Amino acid sequence: MSQLTISKRGTEMPESPIRKLVPYAEAAKARGIKVYHLNIGQPDITTPPSIMQAVADAHMRVLEYSHSAGNESYRKKLAQYYQRVEIEVDYSQILITTGGSEAILFGFLACFDAGDEVIIPEPFYANYNGFAMEAGVKVVPVPSSIETGFALPPVADFEKLITAKTKAIIICNPNNPTGYLYSKEEMETLKDIVLKHNLYLFSDEAYREFCYEGTHFSALQLEGVDENVVLMDTISKRYSACGARIGAFVTRNKILLQTVLKFAQARLSPPTLEQVLGEAATDLPEDYFNETKEEYRRRRDVLVKRLNAIDGVYCPNPGGAFYAMAKLPVQSAEDFCQWLLEDFSYNGQTVMMAPAPGFYATKGLGEDEVRLAYVLNVEDIEKSMDCLEAALKEYKILNSKH
Amino acid sequence: MSQLTISKRGTEMPESPIRKLVPYAEAAKARGIKVYHLNIGQPDITTPPSIMQAVADAHMRVLEYSHSAGNESYRKKLAQYYQRVEIEVDYSQILITTGGSEAILFGFLACFDAGDEVIIPEPFYANYNGFAMEAGVKVVPVPSSIETGFALPPVADFEKLITAKTKAIIICNPNNPTGYLYSKEEMETLKDIVLKHNLYLFSDEAYREFCYEGTHFSALQLEGVDENVVLMDTISKRYSACGARIGAFVTRNKILLQTVLKFAQARLSPPTLEQVLGEAATDLPEDYFNETKEEYRRRRDVLVKRLNAIDGVYCPNPGGAFYAMAKLPVQSAEDFCQWLLEDFSYNGQTVMMAPAPGFYATKGLGEDEVRLAYVLNVEDIEKSMDCLEAALKEYKILNSKH
Repeated sequence: MSQLTISKRGTEMPESPIRKLVPYAEAAKARGIKVYHLNIGQPDITTPPSIMQAVADAHMRVLEYSHSAGNESYRKKLAQYYQRVEIEVDYSQILITTGGSEAILFGFLACFDAGDEVIIPEPFYANYNGFAMEAGVKVVPVPSSIETGFALPPVADFEKLITAKTKAIIICNPNNPTGYLYSKEEMETLKDIVLKHNLYLFSDEAYREFCYEGTHFSALQLEGVDENVVLMDTISKRYSACGARIGAFVTRNKILLQTVLKFAQARLSPPTLEQVLGEAATDLPEDYFNETKEEYRRRRDVLVKRLNAIDGVYCPNPGGAFYAMAKLPVQSAEDFCQWLLEDFSYNGQTVMMAPAPGFYATKGLGEDEVRLAYVLNVEDIEKSMDCLEAALKEYKILNSKH
Repeated sequence: MSQLTISKRGTEMPESPIRKLVPYAEAAKARGIKVYHLNIGQPDITTPPSIMQAVADAHMRVLEYSHSAGNESYRKKLAQYYQRVEIEVDYSQILITTGGSEAILFGFLACFDAGDEVIIPEPFYANYNGFAMEAGVKVVPVPSSIETGFALPPVADFEKLITAKTKAIIICNPNNPTGYLYSKEEMETLKDIVLKHNLYLFSDEAYREFCYEGTHFSALQLEGVDENVVLMDTISKRYSACGARIGAFVTRNKILLQTVLKFAQARLSPPTLEQVLGEAATDLPEDYFNETKEEYRRRRDVLVKRLNAIDGVYCPNPGGAFYAMAKLPVQSAEDFCQWLLEDFSYNGQTVMMAPAPGFYATKGLGEDEVRLAYVLNVEDIEKSMDCLEAALKEYKILNSKH
C-alpha cells in the first residue's frame, strides 16, 4: 500500500538560506534591538509613483486573464526598452512571466529533463537550487573566488565538468551574490564554450541597469548563438518593484519559446494589474536609472570602504548589482551572523547579513564570507558598519577566551 | 556530446485544448463574424469596484516582496472567510499562491515524485495534465459519464486503479468542466477511499460559491482526514478576478505546509497588489454572491433548456460552477467546433465551444461532447443557441450529402 508521504524532492528542497536567520532577527527586534537588514535584496528605493498611478488609472471593469505570453501591448513596449539598451529583440521573442523566478523555472522545465546537468559559477543565487530541485536537474558548480573578485573561472574549469548530461551554463550578470560584472571578453568566452559543446546559455540579467564599472554586455548581444541564449529578466530590481512579480523569458529560439508558451498556458497568465505597471515603467524617462544608479554607487563606495578598513576584512569592489561579498576574520560566518542577532548589540543596534555558504554548492566554500545587500541609505550603512566593526572586535575577544 | 534539445517533458507538454481553436476564431472575426465565446471560463461579471479601488488606495511607497506565504493580514481575513462558509481553518494553515494554478503545482511537487500516480475522475480540468507533466506525475483517469450527469464513479472503479504508486485522488467541486456538484455522501465515500489506501485528497474548490442545487460540502469539512486533505483555491471566479492570480493552498497537514513553504520561498512571493485586492474581497457583503449566483443560475437555466430542446442534444442539469457539458448529434465535436468557426455563420454570428475530448484522458471518450461556459448574459446565450441550433441542422444536411 502506498503511504501518505512528502515527496523526495519536497523533503530535499532547500530552505531559503537568506531567510533561515529570520527567527533570530525577529527575536532581536522583540528585545528592542534595531536590526539593519543587509541580508536581503529588497531595495528601499521608492517605486516610481507614476507606475503605481498607472495601475490606479487603468479602471478595468473586469480583471481578466491576459494572454498567457502577457499583454501584447506590454511585450511591444518591452521590446522597445530592449532596443534602447541595444538588445535586438522583437516582441514575439518575449514571454511575460510571473517574476524572474518563473522565467527560470520555465527555462528549466522546457530545456532539461530529470538527471540533466547545468553548470553554474558559484557562489550563485540560491534559488537556482530550488528550481533545479523542482525540475529534477543537477546543479554542477564551477567555483569562482573572492581572490579574483569572482571573475569567470577559466575555460578549462568548465570543460572538465562538461559531460553528456550537461545542457546549459547559467550566469547572473551582474551577479547576485557577488556583484561581479562580466566583461565582453568573458561573455565571448562563454559563447565559445556553449557553441563548442552545444549548450544553452541562460543569462539572468535582473540587475542590468546597475553597473558602476564598465558597461553591461548582454548575452543577447552575442552573435551567432541565437538558438542557445535565454535571457531571464525581471522588473523587480530595475524599478524597485519586487512585489509586482513581473519578469520575462526572452529568446530568439522559436521552438523553445513555443515550448515555454505551453507551460505558460498551463498557469493561464501573469498578473494583469502588474503588467500595467510594467508597461508604464517602459515609459519612464531615461535619466530615471541615473539617479537610482548614483544612489547605489554612493552606498557601494561607503560600504566597500568601510569593510576594507576593518581589520581582517576583505571586500572586492563589486562592478554591479547591489551586493558585495566580504571575507571576515571568523571561522564560521553562519555562527557569526547568528551571534550578531542573538547575543550582540551596539548602541541597541545590530546588523543582519547573509552567510555565504548558502550561495555555494560546494561544501566548505565561503565559510568565512558573507553577502551584504546595500539596499539601505548611506547613513544606515555607516551605522551598520559601526555595528559590524564593534562586533568583530567583541567576537575576537570572545573566541580567544575559549 | 550533449545536444541543444527541448526537454522530453517540454515536447510532450500538452497545448491548452481550449485555446487550440483560437486561430480559427480570430480568422472568423477577421471575416467580420461575431463569435460568442462559450469556450472559456472568463466571466463577464464586473469585478467589484471596491476591491479594485482598494488597490488604488493602498498608496505603497515601495512595492515590496510580501511574505512567501502571503501577507499575514490577508491570510487572517481569508481564514475568517473560510469560517463564514463553515470551513474551520486557522490562518497558519493557509499559504497564498499565485493563482489556483500554483496551488496545484505546489501540491504536486510537495506530495508526488516522478512516476507517482494520481487518480482523477474524467472529464477533468485539462491543465491538471500540464502540472502533472511538470512534476513527472502520471494521471490515471476514472471515467464518469454524461448518462449519470457525471456523478462520482463507484468505489470499485477507483479501487481497481489504485496501485502502490497511487498517491492521491484529485477532484474539482463543483466541477470544471461538468458543473457537477459532489454530495456530502460522495465526499464521505472519497474520505473512506483515501483513509483506506493512505492517499491525499486534493480538492479544487474554485467554484465553491456557485452552487444551484443543494449546498457545497468542502473536503475540509470531512472529519478525521486532516492529514490527507489539501484544498486548492482561487479568487479568480469567486470575485471575477481571474487576472489577479491570487489563490491559496490550504491544509491542516503541518509538515506538508512547511514543505510547500519551501517551494513558495524559491519563487519569493505572490503578487503584492493583488493580495490587497484579495484581502479587500473578504470584506464584501455576504449578499454579493447572491446576485452573481442568481445571474449564473438564470444563464444556466436558459442554456440547459435551449440545449435540450435541440433535436439530438442532451445536457444534464449542472449543479454548480458555470459550465455545462452537452452531447451533440455529431461524430466529432472537434471537427464540428472547428467547422462552426471556419465555415458557418448565422446572421453573421457563430459560437465557440470547447470540444470535450481535451478534458478526457481516455482516448475515444467524449468525442461527441462539448463544454459550454455560461459566462455571457442571457441575451447572448439565447443568440448563441440560435446559432448552434441552425448549425446542427446545416451540419446534418452537409454530412448526409457525403
